Amino acid sequence: MSDRLIHNDRLFPADPASRNVARELYTQVKHLPIISPHGHTDPQWFADDTPFSNPTELLLAPDHYLYRMMFSQGVSLQQLSVPGRHDVTVADPRRAWREFAAHYFLFRGTPSALWLEHVFAELFGIDQVLNAGTADFYYDTIDDALKQEAFRPRALFDTFNIEVLATTESPLDPLDHHQAIQASQWPGRVITTYRPDPVVDPEHEGFEASVTRFGEITGEDVEHWQGYLNAHRSRRAYFKSMGATATDHGHPSAQTADLSTSECNELYAKIRHGHTDADSAELFRAQMLTEMARMSLDDGMVMQIHAGAHRNHNPWVFEHYGRDKGADIPQRVDFVHALKPLLSRLGTEPGLSIILFTLDESTYSRELAPLAGHYACLKLGPPWWFFDSPEGMRRFRELTTETAGFYNTVGFNDDTRAFLSIPARHDIARRADCGFLARLVVEHRLRLEDALELATELAYSLSKKAYRLDQKSEPDASLV
Amino acid sequence: MSDRLIHNDRLFPADPASRNVARELYTQVKHLPIISPHGHTDPQWFADDTPFSNPTELLLAPDHYLYRMMFSQGVSLQQLSVPGRHDVTVADPRRAWREFAAHYFLFRGTPSALWLEHVFAELFGIDQVLNAGTADFYYDTIDDALKQEAFRPRALFDTFNIEVLATTESPLDPLDHHQAIQASQWPGRVITTYRPDPVVDPEHEGFEASVTRFGEITGEDVEHWQGYLNAHRSRRAYFKSMGATATDHGHPSAQTADLSTSECNELYAKIRHGHTDADSAELFRAQMLTEMARMSLDDGMVMQIHAGAHRNHNPWVFEHYGRDKGADIPQRVDFVHALKPLLSRLGTEPGLSIILFTLDESTYSRELAPLAGHYACLKLGPPWWFFDSPEGMRRFRELTTETAGFYNTVGFNDDTRAFLSIPARHDIARRADCGFLARLVVEHRLRLEDALELATELAYSLSKKAYRLDQKSEPDASLV
Amino acid sequence: MSDRLIHNDRLFPADPASRNVARELYTQVKHLPIISPHGHTDPQWFADDTPFSNPTELLLAPDHYLYRMMFSQGVSLQQLSVPGRHDVTVADPRRAWREFAAHYFLFRGTPSALWLEHVFAELFGIDQVLNAGTADFYYDTIDDALKQEAFRPRALFDTFNIEVLATTESPLDPLDHHQAIQASQWPGRVITTYRPDPVVDPEHEGFEASVTRFGEITGEDVEHWQGYLNAHRSRRAYFKSMGATATDHGHPSAQTADLSTSECNELYAKIRHGHTDADSAELFRAQMLTEMARMSLDDGMVMQIHAGAHRNHNPWVFEHYGRDKGADIPQRVDFVHALKPLLSRLGTEPGLSIILFTLDESTYSRELAPLAGHYACLKLGPPWWFFDSPEGMRRFRELTTETAGFYNTVGFNDDTRAFLSIPARHDIARRADCGFLARLVVEHRLRLEDALELATELAYSLSKKAYRLDQKSEPDASLV
Repeated sequence: MSDRLIHNDRLFPADPASRNVARELYTQVKHLPIISPHGHTDPQWFADDTPFSNPTELLLAPDHYLYRMMFSQGVSLQQLSVPGRHDVTVADPRRAWREFAAHYFLFRGTPSALWLEHVFAELFGIDQVLNAGTADFYYDTIDDALKQEAFRPRALFDTFNIEVLATTESPLDPLDHHQAIQASQWPGRVITTYRPDPVVDPEHEGFEASVTRFGEITGEDVEHWQGYLNAHRSRRAYFKSMGATATDHGHPSAQTADLSTSECNELYAKIRHGHTDADSAELFRAQMLTEMARMSLDDGMVMQIHAGAHRNHNPWVFEHYGRDKGADIPQRVDFVHALKPLLSRLGTEPGLSIILFTLDESTYSRELAPLAGHYACLKLGPPWWFFDSPEGMRRFRELTTETAGFYNTVGFNDDTRAFLSIPARHDIARRADCGFLARLVVEHRLRLEDALELATELAYSLSKKAYRLDQKSEPDASLV
Repeated sequence: MSDRLIHNDRLFPADPASRNVARELYTQVKHLPIISPHGHTDPQWFADDTPFSNPTELLLAPDHYLYRMMFSQGVSLQQLSVPGRHDVTVADPRRAWREFAAHYFLFRGTPSALWLEHVFAELFGIDQVLNAGTADFYYDTIDDALKQEAFRPRALFDTFNIEVLATTESPLDPLDHHQAIQASQWPGRVITTYRPDPVVDPEHEGFEASVTRFGEITGEDVEHWQGYLNAHRSRRAYFKSMGATATDHGHPSAQTADLSTSECNELYAKIRHGHTDADSAELFRAQMLTEMARMSLDDGMVMQIHAGAHRNHNPWVFEHYGRDKGADIPQRVDFVHALKPLLSRLGTEPGLSIILFTLDESTYSRELAPLAGHYACLKLGPPWWFFDSPEGMRRFRELTTETAGFYNTVGFNDDTRAFLSIPARHDIARRADCGFLARLVVEHRLRLEDALELATELAYSLSKKAYRLDQKSEPDASLV
Repeated sequence: MSDRLIHNDRLFPADPASRNVARELYTQVKHLPIISPHGHTDPQWFADDTPFSNPTELLLAPDHYLYRMMFSQGVSLQQLSVPGRHDVTVADPRRAWREFAAHYFLFRGTPSALWLEHVFAELFGIDQVLNAGTADFYYDTIDDALKQEAFRPRALFDTFNIEVLATTESPLDPLDHHQAIQASQWPGRVITTYRPDPVVDPEHEGFEASVTRFGEITGEDVEHWQGYLNAHRSRRAYFKSMGATATDHGHPSAQTADLSTSECNELYAKIRHGHTDADSAELFRAQMLTEMARMSLDDGMVMQIHAGAHRNHNPWVFEHYGRDKGADIPQRVDFVHALKPLLSRLGTEPGLSIILFTLDESTYSRELAPLAGHYACLKLGPPWWFFDSPEGMRRFRELTTETAGFYNTVGFNDDTRAFLSIPARHDIARRADCGFLARLVVEHRLRLEDALELATELAYSLSKKAYRLDQKSEPDASLV
């Protein structure tokens, strides 16, 4: 490990007394296995275990944190080798990497720099700073490493000490890669997550075709509301049989609804016939959150709600590069009124568990901590996306702990498609939490022995429990 | 005092230089008398001075901070001996206490733990940590103490060095306990506060019956707007004669209105005849804030507005346990437009004083500090409810001081029904403010001599002045 | 310099290690020239170079930060010698100064105190604290100094080491003072900024007359939309010829629009005929932001949007004292939807540059940093107005850096009409940024060598570049 790129005390508080306590807490959690209960890695990596191609395709082209920042300073996505929708010619990988290196200074003070330098130093043993002058050295060093056995997906999974890794799939996904993983001798635990947005959000591109396909896959009559619900039940059961313990819902708001069956029939008919306007789309997504909660009561899957992204804000980027290209912008979110229909209907049902994520930090202390500090079915997910960062984590703890405590939160999840950064992300979360706990200890607001216990809970146990990964899964062999 | 439970330096900044200054400031304010100008203790305690019953009934069952957190982790209110609306059987007090002790770890990092441990250590001399193993020891120790003379309400009032304590009563309250206190030889100053929500909020359960009773008590014709206003004038005068210096208004929003008399007549008639919808209820509350401000100009009572709680969010809890059971959730609040009707009408009237409280911290720097930093009639109440906490206090000072200064704030009030926690709450506020001032001193943003003066203002003088407790009251003997 | 009023280490972090790094960074930027690309000083000062009149007229009467705070504590504007709209008799300057001195304690913990004490100590060599007892000493000391050559506007401009100073003028302004400055031998660079609010905001008092005058000045047919746009083009060209590199738009919201030409014709006709309601006024301002952006593409002027002030909240103050008298209150602002029409139309045009300012800090992390971290045309202005303060600057960096980095921000601008405070304001910004960078260095989140580079960027280079002050201006002699 290189002291030049990453320091042993990084992210610990400056004050020496606090830093000492942080070190003590961190020592205890540093080597705990990684629980990664929510993320977007590609299961094919672990199914096929083929080597990663090159530094650019692995580290740069798929990472919207990286190219959004460079795009914001006038670098084109083409130059960065980001694959486009149509026939956009992408830059040669090495040229793209040089472009990246020349703009690396833009990442000063950002979590991307922390993640990357952890990877560069810990994984590739690099101790020089990335810039135009070291671009080729970096490229060659990483490229060489990727050809080695030790850098193949499964080997890295083991090196990273990952106990369980959840990916996220559409209900239309056959889960063939997950099947291949399970059929293999490899003992790594890679599970899926049921993410039904493509068949739940009428504003999702290709929604109509997706619902049709949804019916074909399940054999259910998706022309009608009950058949459509049955299709969900069917796929949820299949996902569960493949190890899924959770569902995930990425909605522009947290709106829920509690319509009557006849209202649902009518709304679904309207939407299924393509007569969708913004209000009915919102109402349909809202009702579906309540339906998903109801199904969770039956099958025991934990429900995640990721609310508040205004997707595809830049129409030019969407047209040329498609979704998830760094052009999603958070928007103001309300939880207190939005969740009320679902909570008034199901909020006191034993066994229901909903994990809430926000991109609107003003809701932490005003809405989310009070809600999670009252309802037994609600827990708070870790700081998400733009807030998966040292300052974001500090604010999350400062703004939620006094009202919701630590035990209504669910530890950390990395939510990343950047596989190599997973250890870095968990390490930052562990350091940030140890730093926060250390401050409480030094200010005599928390006993050291309690902080030691909490450090382990936050780094490992809470996440495992919240996502029900400590429970024996009961695969239904008939479905696999 | 036990170093194990509470530390002399608790809540002071970690940095040694800042901590030294904080200690110096705190030494000066630690023993100042307590001004408690707003809270919810029961005046009957001080009227009757009978011993408190047992640890559970005193400390656990009435404290919604405590049972909301345990409820959020699946403990039933029944197990915690929380009294229900109907025939809910409550747990035996000792069993409830054991349940509490077993879940005490949930309060790590919360103000509840700070308040409780102050009480345990300072008042009951306990030096063990509360958990399942020490539950009975705690129960017995506290139970024994409560039987002693020194733990009766009036003795504790003196021990706590309370200079004045305000309770909060409905206009329908006969204030018989306050009469009994005043008729007694005991010199403790316990005053009331006029809180007219039950006869001002058409959405308050029992509103219609309350208004009818309001008319009976005052002999005013509450079938009409002017009579209804007269009823307020009558009860305000009575409350004032019993020592009240303030009114209090707990509204879902801060909306005010400035309707014409004919609009008021019409609106009141509609509401009095039970034709209330959400909009007219909001408009009526809004107009009543302006009416209350107008009456304040006449009788000199300070007006408190506690805005932004979505009450009774959980219908199951409301049905079985009623209001104020930990199921109130803050909501987004606007002050800048909501207060404009009242301010445009009365905002420059000399003598008007309105103290604003919020549960939406995003309004601190955006709306509240700018408003209080301009209008002479506006002042900022201390961080309220979920934000009556070390982090909440820090954010309040950081977000308001630069725009509103310290002198547009009103010091601390505890706003509590947990009588035993009053010294702990004031102690935390004093420590938090000394810590904030210390940081300014060490960063050379404030002179030490000014910080010393401010520490006393924040701990004692500002509150006394803002609530007009430094003015001689002029009881009207005819009304008592 | 007096250690009693200002300390060498002021505003640096308390922790010794962080303070040392902050000192090292600050040493490097302390003496850099001042770039002041946005402010409200009076160009006549530099045109005429006549001495300032007296302490009250220079420092107190025009500073709404000062009199708003005293007004909020019951001091009348009259007592403070603030000029009114009608025949308000103002206090004698010395009496007003004494009133100010007696209330100076109100500014404890505020940026006003930091600015003033920098001026008192550095410029006037005073080492006593301002209060009732020192009021006359202060008045006489400052009054004497103002009579000296060294305290005349141009001399101070040089003393302050100002490299460039931008003022802000209405399109109706003949810019005669700027002409006089340019015609003089004095080499100071004072430029103007195009601020078209009086002819863009239909709710601006005197809008109709202003538009008429706008037509007269330019010879364009402002009875129609195209002529009105041409009038803007004409005045923009003139402003540019006088050195302007930027426009500025102070709107109540950040709303933009993208109407068709026929819709624009219709909307303009409606407004020009005085048929303006709140919605059409908002829509017109919205469309005009898009038109201004379009013109920026042609003439290369950078566009500033200052969004979110609810102007003239107090009708009594507006009636008696007019606008900009400390009665503007921030309001909640949305950027993500409001900017979309403009961004969808022009957001990927090369060369467009828009600098965004907010008074709603909840938008920093939720909307502004994500927007600036994606769109190449967007940058974030420094913390504005109420947030031009140590805590405001800290929050700005903490809430924006991780998502937008440092390079999507534009350094500091003072935005002030208080000329003497300009060095103090830049000094605070430099100290605050060095303190923030120091914390990152000590927490091993940023290398010291990068922090050193960034300190200079934030203090000097970014601002110069963002406002295109590093580009040679090409004055069109025919227009001057």
